[in-house]
Amino acid sequence: MIISVIGGEDAPADALGFAEEAGRELGKRGVTLCCGGRGGVMEAACRGARSAGGHTIGILPGHDASESPPNPWVEFPVFTGIGYARNSAVVLSGDAVIAIDGAYGTLSEIAFALIHSVPLVGLDTWDFAYHGHDDEKIARAASPQEAVEIAMEMAMQRRSPTA
Amino acid sequence: MIISVIGGEDAPADALGFAEEAGRELGKRGVTLCCGGRGGVMEAACRGARSAGGHTIGILPGHDASESPPNPWVEFPVFTGIGYARNSAVVLSGDAVIAIDGAYGTLSEIAFALIHSVPLVGLDTWDFAYHGHDDEKIARAASPQEAVEIAMEMAMQRRSPTA
Amino acid sequence: MIISVIGGEDAPADALGFAEEAGRELGKRGVTLCCGGRGGVMEAACRGARSAGGHTIGILPGHDASESPPNPWVEFPVFTGIGYARNSAVVLSGDAVIAIDGAYGTLSEIAFALIHSVPLVGLDTWDFAYHGHDDEKIARAASPQEAVEIAMEMAMQRRSPTA
Amino acid sequence: MIISVIGGEDAPADALGFAEEAGRELGKRGVTLCCGGRGGVMEAACRGARSAGGHTIGILPGHDASESPPNPWVEFPVFTGIGYARNSAVVLSGDAVIAIDGAYGTLSEIAFALIHSVPLVGLDTWDFAYHGHDDEKIARAASPQEAVEIAMEMAMQRRSPTA
Repeated sequence: MIISVIGGEDAPADALGFAEEAGRELGKRGVTLCCGGRGGVMEAACRGARSAGGHTIGILPGHDASESPPNPWVEFPVFTGIGYARNSAVVLSGDAVIAIDGAYGTLSEIAFALIHSVPLVGLDTWDFAYHGHDDEKIARAASPQEAVEIAMEMAMQRRSPTA
Repeated sequence: MIISVIGGEDAPADALGFAEEAGRELGKRGVTLCCGGRGGVMEAACRGARSAGGHTIGILPGHDASESPPNPWVEFPVFTGIGYARNSAVVLSGDAVIAIDGAYGTLSEIAFALIHSVPLVGLDTWDFAYHGHDDEKIARAASPQEAVEIAMEMAMQRRSPTA
Repeated sequence: MIISVIGGEDAPADALGFAEEAGRELGKRGVTLCCGGRGGVMEAACRGARSAGGHTIGILPGHDASESPPNPWVEFPVFTGIGYARNSAVVLSGDAVIAIDGAYGTLSEIAFALIHSVPLVGLDTWDFAYHGHDDEKIARAASPQEAVEIAMEMAMQRRSPTA
Repeated sequence: MIISVIGGEDAPADALGFAEEAGRELGKRGVTLCCGGRGGVMEAACRGARSAGGHTIGILPGHDASESPPNPWVEFPVFTGIGYARNSAVVLSGDAVIAIDGAYGTLSEIAFALIHSVPLVGLDTWDFAYHGHDDEKIARAASPQEAVEIAMEMAMQRRSPTA
């Protein structure tokens, strides 16, 4: 199972703490972490995952490590060379997605998750609404541990919808 | 000058009316319209633009017209074959962007406009907020004509920032 | 009808002459020219097309005109922000493709045309072969005028395969 | 270190044998294998790598496993949703690339490796030439073991060019 964690490079300390804890919970459960491979929330999540023995994939915007240096906790960097259009791939590669904090890049990833019906858990992240389309499809979690539990349950439900 | 109009395929009648009017205003002013090339808001905007003699570009997700039929008012279809990742190109190809109504695809395009600092005008579209990052950077218009005027002014300002 | 012309930025004088002539032939026939929007073969083809009153689309790798300046004869620039991955869109957006000269970028575009079965005409361009897969699917032309005629015929045949 | 192995889905038995052997050599040396995640050469290479305890990444064209089923030996599937434009990412994610056999998709990947100066080793794959641009930049190997050795040496040289 692969869970993607999305969130921004400039994040407050509590978001970084949430991200590291979420990464650690994933790693402890043998779930691979996927992310955008950069700093901030992505780096904290990768550090947590690696500290618990989990694998980490970073899907980067640039062509190589000099253009897009992965954070030091990315075990498997994937260089796309397609810029922020790679945000779509970050989301699609997760069996579920956990959004923590985040700026406009994260907002685009949330939108892609909703477009492609990838299960999405939010932890202190964007609120939005417009007419019939709202953010109700984001399962809201109160803690990193709850976010991981919900995401894993949604991912399993997605794989075996009749279960 | 090229202005992108973004909005969803399933849109209420008033949004379609706004889109057609915005397209017509662009066409009358000799501005080329760019969009995602599909139905709904995109089709209404293209129809308006063409009715006023303007050019229209549609940037489509599929590989060809059988996979991604452009709406009948797209003069220049561009087939990307990269799916919804093409939303980024729709936004980047406009000197400014007008968002009308819209679902999650439009939300992703709004996010891309904010990521890349493309001037963005909203007409009855998404509201969102999270901490320091909000939707204040969207100039809100009250009518299609006002949306076009603001978008053109922002596009000119962007080209000649010292003017 | 849209025909894509592919070829490199650094091209010898005779290739540039071929490209300009091909562009002019397309423009005279009311066919829109699509290309990668940059210099060399792309610029010569656009100049030829515009000189004959034709429309030109340039599908660029960068995010905006400062990162990817279109050549001066591109009427409709499309900024993709996905780098050389945009080569696929250049090919897919043509009803047929004419390859003139070219370096590795052109080789990738030839490969994409063959992957997606877009009709392809070669004018003094790459030769390649490997086992059952060869370059026989490239219709070879001896002059720009012949290249345009073959490309248009293949494009029409593709649209109405039973004709 | 990550080495990408490229090659087609329909490949003759000897190419599949080469691919499996190359994968095994990579796995034995602790090098992660990256590929397009599908069948044929990609599957054989992944099987070889996993049999030797190596990690395998598959960068897939579709949005999910139902659209783009990874071969059973892909440990970390990355779903891009951008179709064959993902070929660029397959190449960019390798510190070096080994091409085995292959059809037009592989030709596009070879072209991307040459565009982006990713070290490239060929094992019974495409020959091509045009004027000053040829296939000389492909290091030709006579066996899977030699291909792996050359690729690893080029990858190390690329990382430490002054060594």
